[in-house]
Amino acid sequence: MKKVVAGVDIGGTNTVFGIVDTEGKVLADGHFKTTDYPDVKDFVKALGANVKKLLAGKKDLELVGIGIGAPDANYHRGTIEHAPNLLWKGIVPLGDLVKKELNIKVAITNDANAAAMGEMVFGGAKGMKDFIVLTLGTGLGSGIVVDGKLVYGHTGFAGEVGHLCVVPGGRECGCGRKGCLETYASATGLVKTASLMISEMRADSPLRDIPPSKLTSKAIADAAAKGDPIAVKAMEYTAEKLGLGIINSIVYTSPEAIFLFGGLANAGELLFKPVREYLKKNNYVLFKNTVKILPSGISESNGAVLGSAALILNEL
Amino acid sequence: MKKVVAGVDIGGTNTVFGIVDTEGKVLADGHFKTTDYPDVKDFVKALGANVKKLLAGKKDLELVGIGIGAPDANYHRGTIEHAPNLLWKGIVPLGDLVKKELNIKVAITNDANAAAMGEMVFGGAKGMKDFIVLTLGTGLGSGIVVDGKLVYGHTGFAGEVGHLCVVPGGRECGCGRKGCLETYASATGLVKTASLMISEMRADSPLRDIPPSKLTSKAIADAAAKGDPIAVKAMEYTAEKLGLGIINSIVYTSPEAIFLFGGLANAGELLFKPVREYLKKNNYVLFKNTVKILPSGISESNGAVLGSAALILNEL
Repeated sequence: MKKVVAGVDIGGTNTVFGIVDTEGKVLADGHFKTTDYPDVKDFVKALGANVKKLLAGKKDLELVGIGIGAPDANYHRGTIEHAPNLLWKGIVPLGDLVKKELNIKVAITNDANAAAMGEMVFGGAKGMKDFIVLTLGTGLGSGIVVDGKLVYGHTGFAGEVGHLCVVPGGRECGCGRKGCLETYASATGLVKTASLMISEMRADSPLRDIPPSKLTSKAIADAAAKGDPIAVKAMEYTAEKLGLGIINSIVYTSPEAIFLFGGLANAGELLFKPVREYLKKNNYVLFKNTVKILPSGISESNGAVLGSAALILNEL
Repeated sequence: MKKVVAGVDIGGTNTVFGIVDTEGKVLADGHFKTTDYPDVKDFVKALGANVKKLLAGKKDLELVGIGIGAPDANYHRGTIEHAPNLLWKGIVPLGDLVKKELNIKVAITNDANAAAMGEMVFGGAKGMKDFIVLTLGTGLGSGIVVDGKLVYGHTGFAGEVGHLCVVPGGRECGCGRKGCLETYASATGLVKTASLMISEMRADSPLRDIPPSKLTSKAIADAAAKGDPIAVKAMEYTAEKLGLGIINSIVYTSPEAIFLFGGLANAGELLFKPVREYLKKNNYVLFKNTVKILPSGISESNGAVLGSAALILNEL
C-alpha cells in the first residue's frame, strides 16, 4: 500500500483537488464549482465523493490525510471565518465536517500558508528553516516559516503581510484602512500604479487606449517587456513598494529567502531585478546580502494542490 | 545542591551580573565597568573571577550555565559582531571564551531578546506562546517569541523592529536610513518629537526653557503628567508612531500580547492609553481585540540579569 494524501484548494469560484504522493507527484486531480454549494454540508459531501472517485479502483493507494487551503482559514480551530469571498457566512467548522465525511486527518490553512508549505516540502525552500512566501495575485498573501515551522500566532491568522502599512495615508485598501502593501504590490496594485503613471507621465503608450477597468497586470508586464516607458515605470514603482515591504519583513524573522509566487511574479526579471536593487540599497545593515529573492520552485498550475498536500504531509 | 545560573548583561559602559535560581530569585549580584577591559580576553577573566567570587563559600549552589545579553550578539554563533558601542571590534567569539573560562553551558543574545526570555520565564508572558517585547530606551529593541521560542532567524539577528520603516523619507536613523521606528518610538524619539511640537505649537511650556541637548524623555513625561500641552501632544504623536509599528508587527506573528519595557514605557498610561486607542481604531480587522498591550512584568532594576538568566535556564 502506497500512502497518499489529498490536497484541496477552495477558491471563491472553483475548488481544485488532487491525490498527491509523498514525493509531490500529483497522481490524479479534478475540480468543481465552489459556488454550486451554497450549503457547506453539501460542499463537503461533494468533496468527499470527488476524492473517493479519484481513488476508485486504486487498491494500492491508502489515503492518510487531507490538507485544505481556503480563504480566511484558521489553522488552530480548523475553521473558515467570515470569508467575504465565499457563500458560507460566519464561522464554518470545515475541518470537523471533512473529518466526519472522510474519517481521516485534516489540516486547514489559508492559501498563502499552504503555498509556503508547498515551497518547503516540494519547492525551492527544501532544507531552509527560515523563509517567507509572498503570493502576488489579486491581493498579497504571505506564509512565514520560522525555524522550520509555519507561523500561525495566537489567533491562527498570522502572516498577513499584505496588510502591512507601507504608505501611511496611502491607497484605500479593501480592509477599510489605507496604504496596505497589497494595494501596491499585487496584480491589482500594478494596475492602479499604471493608471497613476498614465496621469503623471507624458510618454505615449498603448496602455492609454485600455480602460482602467480592463487593464491587467499581464498587459502591463508585456508592455514593460517591450520597453514601454509607462509600463517600465509602473513595474519599478511596484518593485520599490514591494522592496519596502520586504525589508520591513526581514527585520522580524531574518529569512534566508523570500519567494515570490503567482500573477505578478510571472513578470520575472522585470520585477525581480528592481526588487533586488532596492534591497541592495535599502536593506538594514545587519541583514545586507543575507536574503535571496527567488521565484517559487512550484509550478503555478498545481501549486495550490501541492501546497495543501504539503500541509498535511508535514503533520503526518 | 541547588542548581543556579549566572545572568550577565554587557552594556557599553557597565556590565551587570547576578546568580539566579530557577524561581527567578537573584541570590547575589554585582557590576563592573565594561570599558575597563579594552581586550575581551581580560574582560572574560574578570567576568569569571567576579562570578566565582559571588559563589565563594556557597557550597550548596551548583552553577550550571551562564546567559549573556550583549549588543549585536549572535545567538547562533555565540559572537558579538561589529558592536559600535563596545571597545571590542570585529567579530568577538565571546561564547567560546566564556565557556573555556568557566567550563559551563553558555548562551548569548542581544538585550531585547534576553528581556523577552525574562518576560516568558519570570514575567508577564508566563504561559504565553506568542508575544513581542519592545524595549523603549535610547533605541527600540525587540524580542519576538513564536510558539514558545525566540525568533533568531537565518542570521541569528532576527527581531529588529526598531528598524521597521514607519515613515518613508522620515527622520534620520543611526543605521544610515530614514524613518525607522526607533527614531520616533524611543526615549530619544520622544525628545525629537518634543522639539517638533515646540516649533509647531504656540502653547507656553517649561520645555521651551530646556536646550534640546538637555531635554530628557523623563522631563517630557513629567510635564505631560502635569498637563503641559506640548508634552501631551508629543506623547500622543509618539504613541501614534509606536501604534503604527505595533499594528505592523501584529500582521507578522499575531501575538497575544505586546510588552513595553524600559525608559519610555515608564510614562505608563500617558503612553499606554493612546497606544491602545490607536490599536482600537487602526488594527487590521482579523486581529482586532486579540492583542493586549502590557507593561513588562519584570522590574527594570534586575530585568537585564533575569533576562539573561532566563535565556540559559530555558535551554537547560
